[in-house]
Amino acid sequence: MTPTTPSDPTALPLEQKAALLSGQDFWSTPPVEAAGLPSVVLTDGPHGVRRQVGDLDQIGLIESVPATCFPPAVAVGSSWDPEVAERIGAAIGVEARAIGVPVVLGPGVNIKRSPLCGRNFEYYSEDPLLAGVLGAAHVRGQQGAGVGASVKHFAANNQETQRMQVSADVDERTLREIYLPAFERVVTEAQPATVMCAYNKVNGVYASQHHWLLTEVLREEWGFTGAVVSDWGAVDDRVAALEAGLDLQMPGDHGAGNALVVDAVRSGRLDEAVVDRSVRRVAGLAGYVAEPTDGFDADAHHALARELATGCAVLLKNEAGALPLAAGQRVAVVGEFARTPRFQGGGSSHVNATRVDDALTALRAVHPDLTFAPGYALDGAGDATALREEAVGLARDAEVTVVFAGLAEADETEGVDRTHLGLPAAQVQLIRAVAAVSARTVVVLSSGSVVSLEGWHDDVDAVLAGFLLGQAGGSALADLLTGAADPSGRLAETIPLRLADTPSFLDFPGEQGHVRYAEGVMVGYRQFVTVDRPVRYPFGHGLSYTTFETSDLQVRAVGDDAATVTLTLTNTGARAGRHVVQVYVATTAGPVRRPARELRAFTKVSLAAGESTTVAFELDRRAFAYWDVREHAWVVAPGEHTVQIGRSATDVVDERTIDLAGDVVVRELTLQSSVAEWFEHPVAGPQLLEGFLATMPEGAAEMHAGMLQMIGSMPMRRFAADFGGAIPAEELERLMAAARAAR
Amino acid sequence: MTPTTPSDPTALPLEQKAALLSGQDFWSTPPVEAAGLPSVVLTDGPHGVRRQVGDLDQIGLIESVPATCFPPAVAVGSSWDPEVAERIGAAIGVEARAIGVPVVLGPGVNIKRSPLCGRNFEYYSEDPLLAGVLGAAHVRGQQGAGVGASVKHFAANNQETQRMQVSADVDERTLREIYLPAFERVVTEAQPATVMCAYNKVNGVYASQHHWLLTEVLREEWGFTGAVVSDWGAVDDRVAALEAGLDLQMPGDHGAGNALVVDAVRSGRLDEAVVDRSVRRVAGLAGYVAEPTDGFDADAHHALARELATGCAVLLKNEAGALPLAAGQRVAVVGEFARTPRFQGGGSSHVNATRVDDALTALRAVHPDLTFAPGYALDGAGDATALREEAVGLARDAEVTVVFAGLAEADETEGVDRTHLGLPAAQVQLIRAVAAVSARTVVVLSSGSVVSLEGWHDDVDAVLAGFLLGQAGGSALADLLTGAADPSGRLAETIPLRLADTPSFLDFPGEQGHVRYAEGVMVGYRQFVTVDRPVRYPFGHGLSYTTFETSDLQVRAVGDDAATVTLTLTNTGARAGRHVVQVYVATTAGPVRRPARELRAFTKVSLAAGESTTVAFELDRRAFAYWDVREHAWVVAPGEHTVQIGRSATDVVDERTIDLAGDVVVRELTLQSSVAEWFEHPVAGPQLLEGFLATMPEGAAEMHAGMLQMIGSMPMRRFAADFGGAIPAEELERLMAAARAAR
Repeated sequence: MTPTTPSDPTALPLEQKAALLSGQDFWSTPPVEAAGLPSVVLTDGPHGVRRQVGDLDQIGLIESVPATCFPPAVAVGSSWDPEVAERIGAAIGVEARAIGVPVVLGPGVNIKRSPLCGRNFEYYSEDPLLAGVLGAAHVRGQQGAGVGASVKHFAANNQETQRMQVSADVDERTLREIYLPAFERVVTEAQPATVMCAYNKVNGVYASQHHWLLTEVLREEWGFTGAVVSDWGAVDDRVAALEAGLDLQMPGDHGAGNALVVDAVRSGRLDEAVVDRSVRRVAGLAGYVAEPTDGFDADAHHALARELATGCAVLLKNEAGALPLAAGQRVAVVGEFARTPRFQGGGSSHVNATRVDDALTALRAVHPDLTFAPGYALDGAGDATALREEAVGLARDAEVTVVFAGLAEADETEGVDRTHLGLPAAQVQLIRAVAAVSARTVVVLSSGSVVSLEGWHDDVDAVLAGFLLGQAGGSALADLLTGAADPSGRLAETIPLRLADTPSFLDFPGEQGHVRYAEGVMVGYRQFVTVDRPVRYPFGHGLSYTTFETSDLQVRAVGDDAATVTLTLTNTGARAGRHVVQVYVATTAGPVRRPARELRAFTKVSLAAGESTTVAFELDRRAFAYWDVREHAWVVAPGEHTVQIGRSATDVVDERTIDLAGDVVVRELTLQSSVAEWFEHPVAGPQLLEGFLATMPEGAAEMHAGMLQMIGSMPMRRFAADFGGAIPAEELERLMAAARAAR
Repeated sequence: MTPTTPSDPTALPLEQKAALLSGQDFWSTPPVEAAGLPSVVLTDGPHGVRRQVGDLDQIGLIESVPATCFPPAVAVGSSWDPEVAERIGAAIGVEARAIGVPVVLGPGVNIKRSPLCGRNFEYYSEDPLLAGVLGAAHVRGQQGAGVGASVKHFAANNQETQRMQVSADVDERTLREIYLPAFERVVTEAQPATVMCAYNKVNGVYASQHHWLLTEVLREEWGFTGAVVSDWGAVDDRVAALEAGLDLQMPGDHGAGNALVVDAVRSGRLDEAVVDRSVRRVAGLAGYVAEPTDGFDADAHHALARELATGCAVLLKNEAGALPLAAGQRVAVVGEFARTPRFQGGGSSHVNATRVDDALTALRAVHPDLTFAPGYALDGAGDATALREEAVGLARDAEVTVVFAGLAEADETEGVDRTHLGLPAAQVQLIRAVAAVSARTVVVLSSGSVVSLEGWHDDVDAVLAGFLLGQAGGSALADLLTGAADPSGRLAETIPLRLADTPSFLDFPGEQGHVRYAEGVMVGYRQFVTVDRPVRYPFGHGLSYTTFETSDLQVRAVGDDAATVTLTLTNTGARAGRHVVQVYVATTAGPVRRPARELRAFTKVSLAAGESTTVAFELDRRAFAYWDVREHAWVVAPGEHTVQIGRSATDVVDERTIDLAGDVVVRELTLQSSVAEWFEHPVAGPQLLEGFLATMPEGAAEMHAGMLQMIGSMPMRRFAADFGGAIPAEELERLMAAARAAR
């Protein structure tokens, strides 16, 4: 339908307003002609448009309109490049416009709490800054093309197991420092059309009816003005959800929930203003509805997908000059994934790709004489030994063998978490057998999240982690292997030595309805670097075919709680390339345990061979702050903060320490304050000590230090009553007043 | 005063009753002649009587009446021998009776959550079974001698930092499985006269006013009938504490709290029955008051302290036959601790020992020609290099050098936690220097809790961990070194490779008023074995001068949830010795994450050279149970349970697996139950599936499995509303009724 000039939708009859707040079917809101409101279609993303065909009243994990499958978030995360995310968002916007889809659901910015999460391929990183910067760029791109985004899944949806029931039990500081900041950045920087609430509970309350999350934090603190939409089927109590700030229930429930809303208003249990508030927000989505455009250039988008994918793959290891492949080398290609690429994950994000490149074909274009053997069957069928032996035969004759390995799509899908990090045993055997005979061995990995390199890592010369690169991933991998493109991806998540080393290992996926986020803020590299536990490859790691050096690092404090950072970056190698400058902050100042370092800024820089450039960063107060649960606020602790430049979370190449004045948190003295807080208080302390000691018997001064050790944490009320007959109540009152006056 | 026949104390005037519920001074309750109630003196223990002399209205970390200093709990824990604990308790009882003390405060059964806790020397173990068995034995011994005990500190008092303010935030299962069972065992098996509440808060509520802990769990579940006494100064809100179940406030607060109690009753805010209840309990302590006896045999008690101490030290390492020392060997003794022994911790438990043995004198009795150099100064004074060089000179000429190292008393004291596990640097340097020149090097450690062996462990031939062995520890160590006694101690706590490896590392001692017990039940060895993280020496480890073998292991299920275990133990060595048979249970059955194995029984067996014996255990249902937070009960999961016999928590020498019927927990089906719970329900599942699939379109059967993966955790209410138009509400009602009927 063509949108007419809308009238005030809150003037509609209550029944129509309630109806507007839930889907008319699986994928769209009901049109309201009286208010000039068209139906708004929302379809899955986020790495391509998934517009379902046929019956719209089905869960619909079935055929969809062909669209470009861009690199999924796992790869975009590894790009460390907001331009990649923004260009993908923009292209998805163009494709959605072409088929008349006003809202595409994405991006997903949930934190990779465990490498086992089955939906990690839809998320960017274990770090909230990286996830937030990339998510905001995606929204900017997509909404710049006129198509609404939906940042998801808000919040603390970090596993698939029991996702519709489990309560993510997360403390306040951890929510603020780890699980919310990516959402915060997307909302405050890019104002997405919608935010999608998660299925799970957060600290016992369904995210769909979590007033603190959906209203206090999202709207009142962050200023979100769009609509909150439920994940499909996430609404439990429709009226409670509305009151909490959930505007649009998807999919529709055949009017059942609408009737409950009407009843609640009629009976006075629900203020109609709450309904009107959500009606206005949902009506606002009509602004994204437009006539379909003339289509899109599928070839150009495929080429874009290929270009962007080359910036995402991570070269983990490259010894003995194994890569790039040299012209004229005798190359053997091994592994079914070379011929049948794995390029996206399963579930709601599954895109019906316009075409699919395989690496084998792309490599043959450069190395026409290469030999190929599948090495293993994706479905485990066939004679594994014979398949392996055939591949080993080719490897024996090759100067370099490239083994394509990875996980099948069924191994990584929405709705299911993995239980281990292993590659299929047949692939591990294949890699070992090839490496034993081949002059050089290169392994190319395709998987939606990290896999263990145990059992073969040390036997091979090079490892290129492609993760999932979208429909042009095959040709992009060939570009990287042949050196047509320089690898510039960096790990957005740690590759551990063992699953048992991962911070959430003992508390994933939880039990008896609860998952305790017991590791707190010590997620991913934050924990590994803090406890100095070895990893296979750290967060931020990634090699290039050229080399980079950092020099002239300068860090200057700005005011009490910010800083500027400048450095010179030089491409010291023989070819052009891109480097990711990673800025971490480390501090032990303040009253809370800080991770040993945290990523606070980054940028990806292109440099020609031999070229130098100056790179500058501004670190605002959030780069130095922790969340203080007593102040319920971000606080910059006074003291030393070290700004570190890293090639990865464990490889710090240079650092400077600055002293920040920070925030002076003056706490009031009460009778519940501890004896130590009293004695150490800048105003009351000296007076108290003087008066107290004067009344004590001989030798008391010597006892003082020991006593403070023993009873320093005793509340003053008890100390004064039980031990401190020497401190009259009036004296304490006087000191409390003095302390207050000095604040 | 002499007790007269007591009349009913609840008939006393309210003011007198209130007064009876708090101390008249620091160490005693007020006498109430009208009710025939004598004053009851309570003094510190637990490894000796600390009866303060002089002014009783002082905190009193000063001189006390001489008493035998028995091995502190850290050593008793390492004995793994309830007879050691019981004989110490009995001897303390005799000494308390001699000086007219009716209640001695102890034992402490808190769990060693972190090796940093400054009061670990007063606690037994990181394992609740070991702590509980030893604590119960101590109480049996002491109360058998007619002196009341006070098991402490109830509960979750596992650190000294901020101990009077911090909230120990612990989940229910962890409390039930780790932090409460030792108290439970002491209360149910030994009925101590009193339980002492902890200073800290538990999940936000002061232990002193924690109704769930002090009344629901302690009295209603465990049947405690004695008096709950506050740790000294632990009462915050006197009336709230009374209502929660805290009977006796110590010390007195000069009547301030009593007046509050009287006011509360008079104003109707407090039921006088609550006061009467506590009055009866406190009055009950009068039963322990008796005339002082004729004294005790200090020589006999010293000899007992020596005998028991030899069963506590742990021989960690013994290579190249370094120990025992051979007759006539050229022995050098190095280290000030050989001459000035460290044998107890600091704080309220500090005993004024009747005499103190040093190892140097005791060793000279056997090796009269030994040479000695102090090696270092305890206070760090003097020329460290000269001291070390002198020692190295002796070591160079010796066939074996015994280095005494450890921590000074000031390093480990009530009120203060350690911040690292290191020995003083001068001692580490000394050990390395000695080991570099001595033919053989033996290190003897004295410390209240574990210290790092990093930097020297691999350089020495033998390590004997004495922990703190009491006033006869010096001679006991000599007995072990010379072979007069066989080492039979076993580690009651893991010795980690690094502090950062310990389970509580990131959450100790907490921040901003809270300490999260984030590691949950995975405390101590439970975590190390579950994540397979290497340690220096595991829980349960300890060598002997002889060897033992286990054979004929048989495990038989008893009923649905218990088992018997029998095995043959043989002393396969050339001398008599004692071995600790450790029985662990391992299972993955049930809905919660279990530690890889847990200690469920143990016994210490003495065998002559070549002797064999049959050892039998009965494992009751608690040996197989976990705490189910949905059922709020102990549940034995149906399935396989493996009974393992270990030399330590990591060295399993034999095992048998049994299949237990366990407890069948039938859960009701509701509309909030998940789709998976519905489909997998034994009654409703098959009917639901049949009816559901019949209504689905062609191809639905194939979709079924995939759909269950995607939405298995969706509450049935939502599934039926959003997706399941095919399942009428009446059908669900019918199935719920069928499920209920089948329970």
